[in-house]
Amino acid sequence: MNCQQIHLLFGVNRENNIAMNKKDRAAKAGLGPGSLIHVGKKRDEQISIRVMNYTSDSLEERTITDLEECHQYRTPDTITWLDFDGIHDPRMVEKVGAIFGIHILVQEDIMNSTSRPKVEVFEDFTFVTLKMLDFQSTTKTINEEQFSLIIGKGFLLTFQERPGDDFEPIRDRIRMSTGRVRTKDSEYLAYLLLDVIVDNYIKLSQDFYEKIEALEPLVLSTTKESVINSILSLRKELIHFKRSVDPLKEAINTLHNETENENKKYYRDLFDHIIYESENIAMYREMLGNLIDLYHSRITIRTNDVMRVLTIITTIFVPLTFIVGVYGMNFKHMPELYWEHGYFYVWGLMILIVMGMIVFFKRQKWI
Amino acid sequence: MNCQQIHLLFGVNRENNIAMNKKDRAAKAGLGPGSLIHVGKKRDEQISIRVMNYTSDSLEERTITDLEECHQYRTPDTITWLDFDGIHDPRMVEKVGAIFGIHILVQEDIMNSTSRPKVEVFEDFTFVTLKMLDFQSTTKTINEEQFSLIIGKGFLLTFQERPGDDFEPIRDRIRMSTGRVRTKDSEYLAYLLLDVIVDNYIKLSQDFYEKIEALEPLVLSTTKESVINSILSLRKELIHFKRSVDPLKEAINTLHNETENENKKYYRDLFDHIIYESENIAMYREMLGNLIDLYHSRITIRTNDVMRVLTIITTIFVPLTFIVGVYGMNFKHMPELYWEHGYFYVWGLMILIVMGMIVFFKRQKWI
Amino acid sequence: MNCQQIHLLFGVNRENNIAMNKKDRAAKAGLGPGSLIHVGKKRDEQISIRVMNYTSDSLEERTITDLEECHQYRTPDTITWLDFDGIHDPRMVEKVGAIFGIHILVQEDIMNSTSRPKVEVFEDFTFVTLKMLDFQSTTKTINEEQFSLIIGKGFLLTFQERPGDDFEPIRDRIRMSTGRVRTKDSEYLAYLLLDVIVDNYIKLSQDFYEKIEALEPLVLSTTKESVINSILSLRKELIHFKRSVDPLKEAINTLHNETENENKKYYRDLFDHIIYESENIAMYREMLGNLIDLYHSRITIRTNDVMRVLTIITTIFVPLTFIVGVYGMNFKHMPELYWEHGYFYVWGLMILIVMGMIVFFKRQKWI
Amino acid sequence: MNCQQIHLLFGVNRENNIAMNKKDRAAKAGLGPGSLIHVGKKRDEQISIRVMNYTSDSLEERTITDLEECHQYRTPDTITWLDFDGIHDPRMVEKVGAIFGIHILVQEDIMNSTSRPKVEVFEDFTFVTLKMLDFQSTTKTINEEQFSLIIGKGFLLTFQERPGDDFEPIRDRIRMSTGRVRTKDSEYLAYLLLDVIVDNYIKLSQDFYEKIEALEPLVLSTTKESVINSILSLRKELIHFKRSVDPLKEAINTLHNETENENKKYYRDLFDHIIYESENIAMYREMLGNLIDLYHSRITIRTNDVMRVLTIITTIFVPLTFIVGVYGMNFKHMPELYWEHGYFYVWGLMILIVMGMIVFFKRQKWI
Amino acid sequence: MNCQQIHLLFGVNRENNIAMNKKDRAAKAGLGPGSLIHVGKKRDEQISIRVMNYTSDSLEERTITDLEECHQYRTPDTITWLDFDGIHDPRMVEKVGAIFGIHILVQEDIMNSTSRPKVEVFEDFTFVTLKMLDFQSTTKTINEEQFSLIIGKGFLLTFQERPGDDFEPIRDRIRMSTGRVRTKDSEYLAYLLLDVIVDNYIKLSQDFYEKIEALEPLVLSTTKESVINSILSLRKELIHFKRSVDPLKEAINTLHNETENENKKYYRDLFDHIIYESENIAMYREMLGNLIDLYHSRITIRTNDVMRVLTIITTIFVPLTFIVGVYGMNFKHMPELYWEHGYFYVWGLMILIVMGMIVFFKRQKWI
Repeated sequence: MNCQQIHLLFGVNRENNIAMNKKDRAAKAGLGPGSLIHVGKKRDEQISIRVMNYTSDSLEERTITDLEECHQYRTPDTITWLDFDGIHDPRMVEKVGAIFGIHILVQEDIMNSTSRPKVEVFEDFTFVTLKMLDFQSTTKTINEEQFSLIIGKGFLLTFQERPGDDFEPIRDRIRMSTGRVRTKDSEYLAYLLLDVIVDNYIKLSQDFYEKIEALEPLVLSTTKESVINSILSLRKELIHFKRSVDPLKEAINTLHNETENENKKYYRDLFDHIIYESENIAMYREMLGNLIDLYHSRITIRTNDVMRVLTIITTIFVPLTFIVGVYGMNFKHMPELYWEHGYFYVWGLMILIVMGMIVFFKRQKWI
Repeated sequence: MNCQQIHLLFGVNRENNIAMNKKDRAAKAGLGPGSLIHVGKKRDEQISIRVMNYTSDSLEERTITDLEECHQYRTPDTITWLDFDGIHDPRMVEKVGAIFGIHILVQEDIMNSTSRPKVEVFEDFTFVTLKMLDFQSTTKTINEEQFSLIIGKGFLLTFQERPGDDFEPIRDRIRMSTGRVRTKDSEYLAYLLLDVIVDNYIKLSQDFYEKIEALEPLVLSTTKESVINSILSLRKELIHFKRSVDPLKEAINTLHNETENENKKYYRDLFDHIIYESENIAMYREMLGNLIDLYHSRITIRTNDVMRVLTIITTIFVPLTFIVGVYGMNFKHMPELYWEHGYFYVWGLMILIVMGMIVFFKRQKWI
Repeated sequence: MNCQQIHLLFGVNRENNIAMNKKDRAAKAGLGPGSLIHVGKKRDEQISIRVMNYTSDSLEERTITDLEECHQYRTPDTITWLDFDGIHDPRMVEKVGAIFGIHILVQEDIMNSTSRPKVEVFEDFTFVTLKMLDFQSTTKTINEEQFSLIIGKGFLLTFQERPGDDFEPIRDRIRMSTGRVRTKDSEYLAYLLLDVIVDNYIKLSQDFYEKIEALEPLVLSTTKESVINSILSLRKELIHFKRSVDPLKEAINTLHNETENENKKYYRDLFDHIIYESENIAMYREMLGNLIDLYHSRITIRTNDVMRVLTIITTIFVPLTFIVGVYGMNFKHMPELYWEHGYFYVWGLMILIVMGMIVFFKRQKWI
Repeated sequence: MNCQQIHLLFGVNRENNIAMNKKDRAAKAGLGPGSLIHVGKKRDEQISIRVMNYTSDSLEERTITDLEECHQYRTPDTITWLDFDGIHDPRMVEKVGAIFGIHILVQEDIMNSTSRPKVEVFEDFTFVTLKMLDFQSTTKTINEEQFSLIIGKGFLLTFQERPGDDFEPIRDRIRMSTGRVRTKDSEYLAYLLLDVIVDNYIKLSQDFYEKIEALEPLVLSTTKESVINSILSLRKELIHFKRSVDPLKEAINTLHNETENENKKYYRDLFDHIIYESENIAMYREMLGNLIDLYHSRITIRTNDVMRVLTIITTIFVPLTFIVGVYGMNFKHMPELYWEHGYFYVWGLMILIVMGMIVFFKRQKWI
Repeated sequence: MNCQQIHLLFGVNRENNIAMNKKDRAAKAGLGPGSLIHVGKKRDEQISIRVMNYTSDSLEERTITDLEECHQYRTPDTITWLDFDGIHDPRMVEKVGAIFGIHILVQEDIMNSTSRPKVEVFEDFTFVTLKMLDFQSTTKTINEEQFSLIIGKGFLLTFQERPGDDFEPIRDRIRMSTGRVRTKDSEYLAYLLLDVIVDNYIKLSQDFYEKIEALEPLVLSTTKESVINSILSLRKELIHFKRSVDPLKEAINTLHNETENENKKYYRDLFDHIIYESENIAMYREMLGNLIDLYHSRITIRTNDVMRVLTIITTIFVPLTFIVGVYGMNFKHMPELYWEHGYFYVWGLMILIVMGMIVFFKRQKWI
């Protein structure tokens, strides 16, 4: 596995999130609630609303563009799922808010693609907002997308930033009436959607696990800089992932506590999954910390090895070089130069020095 | 982006805060409550009070200098916003305290520009004090300013250290009666002000995010000392920022819990924003920690590389230099010197040594 | 003790757990509850069910393969332990779920070999799932196996991934009617099984302790890379172990709180054991952290020592080599060369330099 | 600012606290309550008791030496402040305990100068013990002194280890009847004393802040060892400071919760101050951590720089030295030596090598 | 103070605790409660039971060997302290359990010398188990010994692993009827024993403090490896100490909460001591962390110093050696060699180079 790939694999598509909306914020500052402004990357797509309106017996599926048509779906006798793709049009959100009686602050949260994952329970409906994390295998990036739900009696409104989601299997099940979905209420439908999102978290988490495990043999076999870059870039992505998952714990717990009917069990299950992910993230952090320690240990040991070789070579040859330098001097009066076996005596001396050095290094456990 | 700029960008204008008021403290010690002393940098500006007195129908806006005139605004039938610029005059605070029935300890907190962000609920009013953080794009510094609110029935007192704030849009909305502000009570007005301050936090937080993100490519491309200085100075600023934000969590939560009317939702929204910021700060800390690790890894790897080159060069040439030294000696009796091809034998020997070294280095994966 | 052994000793047999079931997850995503899919490594073994059906007087022990036969064991007048080896067959789990009235989400958890340890209390039964950790001394690996219990009135269902467990002594006691087991209810039997599992944790924990203690003298005697690899691989295993133990704390506590009869004491005892293990793991982590610090200190000290020797040798001989080089020059006019005692003067100079160096090193405390 | 000064500035006068009273402890062990032994440094001063007995109208101030005289001050109709200087005489404490009905365990805590800051509420009185930290500008040390209060109805007993305190301004206010003190109860008086002590903490905390800020430019300008010593010694002092402040949080909170009258507000204020200090300490720790990181980064960078210079010089000159060594050999048959321009060819070769090296270093970004 | 001594001073006598009883565990696994097995080092001593049976008027002191005699002491009209030395005999514990109605799980805990410190409140009695830490000045080791108490109405059973304890002063007080012990109940007696044990913790803690303080000057004066070994071995001991103290916090708190009579105050006092110790341990950890940082800083600085000297020497002499090498070449045609003042020009050149180097080093602040 190539490190650079690991790195790129997690280049999160997050440009629309934290840094880019300072101007929106600046524009918003001081306006207070009541003046909706979209916080996030501007989009021009036409907003389209997919409607699925069903009972256990009937199913109506259509796409509407006129918001006025939403009025009819407020009734609790059929379950209606209104799926809004695009949150950039304040008039749309305002209109929907007026039709379904949604508080202005909730409208703001829906339009804000940087909202913190949370659940708020109102008298008529429950508001859920969270991050939809989606690994795009084509572009090798993670898409982060704000996803909001308004769970009302008989209706479910969902707001996505962009068209395209992983909910097609659920739509199929509604269409084909497989599973229990057609016989259950909007809360159960919301659970199914949230379950898909959380399952995506788990898949992503498994990607993390695989990447971490793939890094370990790399760390053990090389000390290339790309390895530590991969580790630290993975850790950075994990920080972002954690940021999406951790607040959800509290949110889903609220949902679980506020639910009093048979759906409680399902939300409990969702909560367990989130806790599991949160613990996994903590574990991955420790594993990455472990890898970083391992990497640094190896660098340190390597430096030490290099050092030792350098020292041994230098320590052996520098004194010898000095000695041969002595007898390379051109003094007229150097008695040793005229000795019969002077040259061999010098060799003898040098061999003695080398042997002494070797004894010294042995004692120091350097060789 | 220049690192030095990053550094300077956050040179917080905090001189009036922690270190400078030791003398004030010393003067205050032992006096107990009852003797107001301004804790903070001394200022000489004349205190001026801006009054906005409104109902849904009427609006009176003026500036008063005689504190006695405040008396008329205590009545709950109109909403009055009294904005005091300057907290350095104990007599002023004392006078206001007497008129509005403010406890002596609250008066002390108003005058103390080092007060910890907090909310205290009294029978007649609620006291809020917090830090107003304001990025001055001209001077490239963050201004930290203590801001206190007394939220009473029908009146709102605000105390700033200096004239100049970001509340002008709110004043405009009161003047032009846009939004709901004219139809709501003083608590809602307080919420609007707090919302502006918290929005400024968010803008500041986004500055942090951008700076951290801007540092990452720098860390990856250079190991200059200025990079680590920028990182650590950013981390220091983050510590100070955290210091302003974290206690506010508890404070706004108190405000939310104590509010029982429709404003509760707004304070809840404020609380969510603060939690979000607090979590962001935690995330930024981790990201900076990650950058520091990355920086140190790069330094260590670089040192190791330098070391390796040094060792390779030394290890190859030192023995060779020794050998040529040997045959530079001037002994009368050195048989090799007189061999026909002695010189070429020596070259052969040296080439053998170099080749041996290269094999050794290959085995050590140094080249 | 050989480090490599330490390392291998803990090569956890975890292939079926986190990374491998992404495809299962992917297949499951969007299906919602109602469609059971086994999450884990596929197995082909025939599922076999061991039945122990007993009262204080009678005992029936058999193996059944037809699930229909389970019906008869739902009655609360005898205690029945149905032990299912293998969880890979959705139809089996579905069937059992139908017979014993097990919620679909619990069925999912049973089939999911990556379930987080937890306890869920339902009206008719209590569901427990946890990791069975088992040290195989033959293969020197830890087997991790999901183990689920359904504790009902008069029956106990246990689900293991593979045949083979450590419950034989319990079966013997049921057979021979030793201890209290035959006179007690299914909850007590569940306690006995959990106690065996937790005892295995404790044994494993003691293995960790021994390994850590065995590493300490190694760290003190050598700086070989294998030592730090062993430490860090042990720490990694500890992270995984912690992952199995920590959620169990909460789970067993739930069990303890929900139990109101005399078995409460037993679950309390189990809880104490888990807490003890959890604290031990925290302690091992600190001990390993200590060892890592010790190792790095030793490397650093060693590098420093090597450095000092290098510096001393170089600092002494490089100037001397320079001096002898000077008098090895071939200039025609070098007066010193013709002095009578020039050679001895040079030796004197060099001895002076060496003595100066030694004084310098002494002052620096390098020798 | 001189580092050594910073270091010495905080040489805490703590000799009487933790280490010195092992013998006392040893003596005490097994005696159980009932046998009072002073734990702390032995002192020989005569115990003297300063009495201030006042109502809003009258004031009696005197010094008594006969403990029997205390009896008269138990009455709740006047407020009496009995200030005991010295806690080393068990008979004194026992006598006072008998007169005011103080539990034997409280008597022990009063005599123990290592008591943990705490508040205990009894039926008749409230017991407070804490550390009085006092910066002696003459000796440049911090004095740590155990200070205990017994707050009863109509009387306040205070126990100091040594004569001399910072309460003179409060005494003056009692004498001159300024402020509210003469009209309030003993609890308010206790609040005033505690406020002085906590104000001293704040002053000390500001000293810490100034010292940390003073260290930053030092770290940026030098890598002398004294800098890191100063930082770490400051951190050590901070650990001790934290040890005095943190338990006080809980103690003052107890005091605040137990107080039901108008003094509650004052204790709340005190609590806020302590929380503020506690948060400051946390901030200082992070700032020091930041400085330590900065220091180590600078050392590492410096080492890297030194290394690079060494490597460049060595890598350039070692091969050259080898080449000139070759042509310094004395072989009879060395053809190059007899070439007309051999000498200049060698220079050409060497210049080529140097240029190659420079290209290599440029590519490595070393120069 | 010698480092090695520090090290050895804390060689804890812990062989009987964690690692050694794996076989016991293995033997126990699957047996479930009901079959007592001693977990710990086997001992052969005869169990002896010391009895002190007293009222405020009478005292009976004897040693019994026949367990049947215990029956008579169950009555609540006299206070009886039965002190069992040795817990290795299951029949003994079983017998005592039967006589005093002790639950089988408690019997197991008594026999298990690795039990976690805890308190369990039963209907008839309270069970306390904790570690007795005892510094043996003769062998310079810490003895760790499991100590269990059964506090019943009118009787107190204590179980020690070995004969010999620090309770003699308490026995003397019972004998001589000094203090309150003879007039109080068994709970008070238990408090006295626990107080002695906790006092021993405090003494041990003071030993830690002294050792840490003794290490500081060592760290500042030397970088010998033995210093860091001492620090890390002290930290390791602290981890073990913490392991004994921390669970006790919760245990003693339970004891305090469950006690409703006048002894509550005493347990509160005990609780304060334990909290104090726990905080001390946290402080020692930080102090040791500080020392480790200090040590590593010194090593790093030292390496940097060594490095700098090496670099200066090399950088000055290597170029010079090259120059003298050039003029040591034996080319026939080297014009400089024949210049009249060539030799002195070379010296001039070399002096210029040295001066240039010195300027460079000054600019780099290396000298």
